[in-house]
Amino acid sequence: MQQEGCGCQREDLPWSGRGTKLDISGCRFSLYPMDSDFVSIILGALEKTDTSAVWSQSDALSTVYRGRLPYVADAVKGLFINAWRPGVHMALEGQFSKGCPGDCDGDSLLDRQGPAPNQALAAKRHFPVLCKLALYPMGVGDYIDQIAQVWRMAEDAGLAPATIHYATRISGDVHQVFDYLEAVCRRMEETVPHYILHFTLSVNSPTQE
Amino acid sequence: MQQEGCGCQREDLPWSGRGTKLDISGCRFSLYPMDSDFVSIILGALEKTDTSAVWSQSDALSTVYRGRLPYVADAVKGLFINAWRPGVHMALEGQFSKGCPGDCDGDSLLDRQGPAPNQALAAKRHFPVLCKLALYPMGVGDYIDQIAQVWRMAEDAGLAPATIHYATRISGDVHQVFDYLEAVCRRMEETVPHYILHFTLSVNSPTQE
Repeated sequence: MQQEGCGCQREDLPWSGRGTKLDISGCRFSLYPMDSDFVSIILGALEKTDTSAVWSQSDALSTVYRGRLPYVADAVKGLFINAWRPGVHMALEGQFSKGCPGDCDGDSLLDRQGPAPNQALAAKRHFPVLCKLALYPMGVGDYIDQIAQVWRMAEDAGLAPATIHYATRISGDVHQVFDYLEAVCRRMEETVPHYILHFTLSVNSPTQE
Repeated sequence: MQQEGCGCQREDLPWSGRGTKLDISGCRFSLYPMDSDFVSIILGALEKTDTSAVWSQSDALSTVYRGRLPYVADAVKGLFINAWRPGVHMALEGQFSKGCPGDCDGDSLLDRQGPAPNQALAAKRHFPVLCKLALYPMGVGDYIDQIAQVWRMAEDAGLAPATIHYATRISGDVHQVFDYLEAVCRRMEETVPHYILHFTLSVNSPTQE
């Protein structure tokens, strides 16, 4: 029987204790342009985004990038920025993760060096983003303390964190928000064996608050 | 300073140890119709959905329902079914949860009795759904075993679970999928103090697999 282990599809691996030693970060995400032209928005963004620094796989529900954290974050940010269109309401739902005990050592790209390939193009674009996020440090008793520390990081970064049931909201420029998400991932990989950071970004929402 | 605790907005509560004793389940979700007519699809679905059995709050990013699990699940399923339109690609992103140590005893509706109010209308509608999900049993060392058991529940329910990186995919009729999500929540509330079940449902995807 195929086993559940946060996603490893290989059955020849030991069930647990392997993934936490791997230096593989990943992000599974879905892009939702609320527009009848959504196919061309998504395909156009994919075409403009350099994914040469990550391993990538797509299915009908989502896409996953895997590799070293800076390149994974760069590719996701690049795709989101490339998909942005004036006035088009769009959401990006995703989860950064590292350290699942059942993770496998394939399906990744870890030998890449040098600058993140989407950085130069992405740096020129700026727009405001609403974000909700939820952090799950797994297998540790003090996870609430870890979450509290990350909350304070958002405060220090000027992202105006606000608690809502089951999540935290932040807002800022698209680069500020992605910098924060990446900083949370870096902190988590230093402090817990396995984490998942769920996030939803929203742009051009017609809802006034 | 306002503290992070999975979302409690009240500062007069003790920081931890309260939420796990509360019989309050919740679901935070966002509906994404990939259609330029998305506003009327969402508003039309809200109008048809009976939310009298749950506490509800919306912001620009998502909506949260809180109360007793059967009513929370009924309201989310009712909204999704009411939003479905032939040929319109749509996704529902959400998280069921119960037991956050920082949860508060307000913002819920727990005295409701009787049948779930959307059941009769929803039962008449059937369509196939793709789903990805990720379960997080918090603060326990054996969380991977809990996840594996829930994977087998999907197998037993005929939902053809498949592992993908960071998630599990299932597919079935909309009612089968919601029944499974609710069954996972019930099992988790019996076995762990705090869980979160993230899910994404997709209908009418143009992507052929």
